[in-house]
Amino acid sequence: MNIKFTNARILTMVRGEDVYDGSLYTQDDRIVYVGPALTEVEETSKLPSGYKADKTMDCSGNLLMPGFKNAHAHSGMSVLRSCADDMPLGDWLNKQIFPREAKLDADMIADATKLSVLEYLTGGMTACFDMYLTPESEACAYRDMGYRAVLCGNLNNFSSSVGYTEEMYDKLNHYDPLITYEIGFHAEYTCSDELMKSLSEMAHRHNAPVYTHLSETRSEVDGCIERYGMTPAAYLESIGMWDNGGGGYHCVHMSDEDMEIFKRHGLHVITNPGSNTKLASGIAPIREYLERGINVGIGTDGPASNNCLDMFREMFLTTGLAKLREEDAAVVDALDVLHMATVGSAMAMRLNDADVLAAGKLADIIMLDLHQPNMQPLNNIAKNIVYSGSKSNVKMTMIAGRILYMDGRFDDSYDVERIYERAQEIIDTIR
Amino acid sequence: MNIKFTNARILTMVRGEDVYDGSLYTQDDRIVYVGPALTEVEETSKLPSGYKADKTMDCSGNLLMPGFKNAHAHSGMSVLRSCADDMPLGDWLNKQIFPREAKLDADMIADATKLSVLEYLTGGMTACFDMYLTPESEACAYRDMGYRAVLCGNLNNFSSSVGYTEEMYDKLNHYDPLITYEIGFHAEYTCSDELMKSLSEMAHRHNAPVYTHLSETRSEVDGCIERYGMTPAAYLESIGMWDNGGGGYHCVHMSDEDMEIFKRHGLHVITNPGSNTKLASGIAPIREYLERGINVGIGTDGPASNNCLDMFREMFLTTGLAKLREEDAAVVDALDVLHMATVGSAMAMRLNDADVLAAGKLADIIMLDLHQPNMQPLNNIAKNIVYSGSKSNVKMTMIAGRILYMDGRFDDSYDVERIYERAQEIIDTIR
Repeated sequence: MNIKFTNARILTMVRGEDVYDGSLYTQDDRIVYVGPALTEVEETSKLPSGYKADKTMDCSGNLLMPGFKNAHAHSGMSVLRSCADDMPLGDWLNKQIFPREAKLDADMIADATKLSVLEYLTGGMTACFDMYLTPESEACAYRDMGYRAVLCGNLNNFSSSVGYTEEMYDKLNHYDPLITYEIGFHAEYTCSDELMKSLSEMAHRHNAPVYTHLSETRSEVDGCIERYGMTPAAYLESIGMWDNGGGGYHCVHMSDEDMEIFKRHGLHVITNPGSNTKLASGIAPIREYLERGINVGIGTDGPASNNCLDMFREMFLTTGLAKLREEDAAVVDALDVLHMATVGSAMAMRLNDADVLAAGKLADIIMLDLHQPNMQPLNNIAKNIVYSGSKSNVKMTMIAGRILYMDGRFDDSYDVERIYERAQEIIDTIR
Repeated sequence: MNIKFTNARILTMVRGEDVYDGSLYTQDDRIVYVGPALTEVEETSKLPSGYKADKTMDCSGNLLMPGFKNAHAHSGMSVLRSCADDMPLGDWLNKQIFPREAKLDADMIADATKLSVLEYLTGGMTACFDMYLTPESEACAYRDMGYRAVLCGNLNNFSSSVGYTEEMYDKLNHYDPLITYEIGFHAEYTCSDELMKSLSEMAHRHNAPVYTHLSETRSEVDGCIERYGMTPAAYLESIGMWDNGGGGYHCVHMSDEDMEIFKRHGLHVITNPGSNTKLASGIAPIREYLERGINVGIGTDGPASNNCLDMFREMFLTTGLAKLREEDAAVVDALDVLHMATVGSAMAMRLNDADVLAAGKLADIIMLDLHQPNMQPLNNIAKNIVYSGSKSNVKMTMIAGRILYMDGRFDDSYDVERIYERAQEIIDTIR
């Protein structure tokens, strides 16, 4: 399907480009033109030869921008939302989450993943970086829903193996254009020295980056120092885990040396402020990452720990918590945060074709409704998005040129009520 | 208009009552029945004699609950949204806000207030406690829109006077059933000793509570200690300002003695976590307020400092920031926060008839859409509201029995596009 969007405001997220009025044309899964409105004559010269729009959409002055990318998620945990909250971290994890997770099978996880996809679409998130238990069933769920996902290995002492991770790496990177797979392990504190060294060797065989939960809590860092005499980032550097890049989820408690390691290896920080707030893990040093030129992406974490899959919340928290941490209302400008939620996350996820709006890029696009009171007046549209924006402003979510959500309605191919019913059945089964 | 709501889930916010399935009947501006569904025979016995519903609404299992009350706002500042962000507090206030505010006249403020009302309605807020510059024009704007407001005096050394405050107290408390007026002053640091003593005397004449910005920033507290050798709460107690109760907006930097003063006089804390975050003012000690039995309400503050008028954001921040402050994921339970946003705020605003759903109470009611992915599964509806709820879940906002917002549409009497245009004209005039 080729779509011509007219009468739009456009925020490409290319650095230095401000919001402007214009048009955007998609052809199949790609953007073929974005810029000032074209006359019919200009269309002939500026669009691919023989281009014909199947549909023209008048945006009525609403905003087109790249979709948000959720750079850290456990989508299959949606059924655990609000199962257990307001508890100390240890009890929450050991008594509430782990026992229930142990009862989830691959089909349940696929269905729970579909529920998260619906929520991502309502919030304008066009891709997620999903570390969870059954990558094959997850990949199938994402493909069935037409959703873009980067799956991440979840290796640890209790489940998965280096061999399985390598098998998934080979298989899921050739599964569907919407799906990629990255090497990953759960965390230093859930993996043996031997296991991590073996994974590092495997990553070297593929010249591939590695991703993991990193320095989320102070006790995790303290434990690693006890075990290895080093912080998690330093230990992982010592076994060559970062030789081909990669990134850390959370990165709340990081030393100066940890940040230097990130800088040295071009690693990505993926911040999860909603989860870090609800679980009282702490506030990540975002200002320092930015000052060092470390790329920062933003993720929601899983729906059991957050519990909301909402990039608007995460964006406000990313700048707001930095301001509280530094006691300075000027740090971590909202425009930098908007960049993190789109381009920064895309870079961390290696979705280099889905970062900005430009000809040749993937048509992973959202339309935000500016005709709502929280977006008025239009003093600064980009800051409005970060400071007063809400899921309620998401009019459209398009992935790979397909409109999957529009004006509160999902793609006709989805059986939404059945996804809700099934989520309820699953939690009622494993409770 | 009398409305019968059937097939609803109901959360009355009466302490100890959980969500249940049932019906709710309104008659004019009041609730006449809320409880389990009634048969026709039961309707005759349990409803006022001769009751006839003008309209029956099938809620399809969605949730009815009391509207959120915004216990601190400066609604007329909506035109300043995103005019100036990411700046040090002093520069923001002195260089960006004050010079523009000085150019606002009563008509502009009325129009800007209307824009905020639209935003309140989209977010399920059925009343606001508004401290701003031109109470008469504000009252007129609220009345015209059918919106419930408690106006608050804004006395300071530069505008208003004790005489004017008393005049407004008499006048606006007899203006319209939707409007009340409370005595208030801007803050200790913007009022002379003489002025505050004179206001305290006036409050005694009326046996009325007094409200003010209190201990928002550390420098404000330090300044007061320099001036009077006491914290703001203690100084105000010393001049009898709290003799008839009242409350403080913000209350971020409070000593043990300050909290004891609040407890002693039955004062209300009105917390504004969004504003305190964006302006880097600090995190209020909510856990300590709750442990002392001090009532806490929640407000958004003004749209220039927040910039979002969204109780869902404020609720998440109220519990989340407390968790970060105390480094304990168990403190300030979400159910307490939901209580603050409804009953706690209503108490602080003296809206004693608009706190819970019960026969005889005002019909200030919202319907939340549970058929959205962020509300599924229904493990714990009340926690879902606080942790994963969003403005996008607000299906209906009713005030005094009138549906003013439903399914994304405002009351037909509003000229929404004109309100947006006018907001843009105002900021373009005063920029």
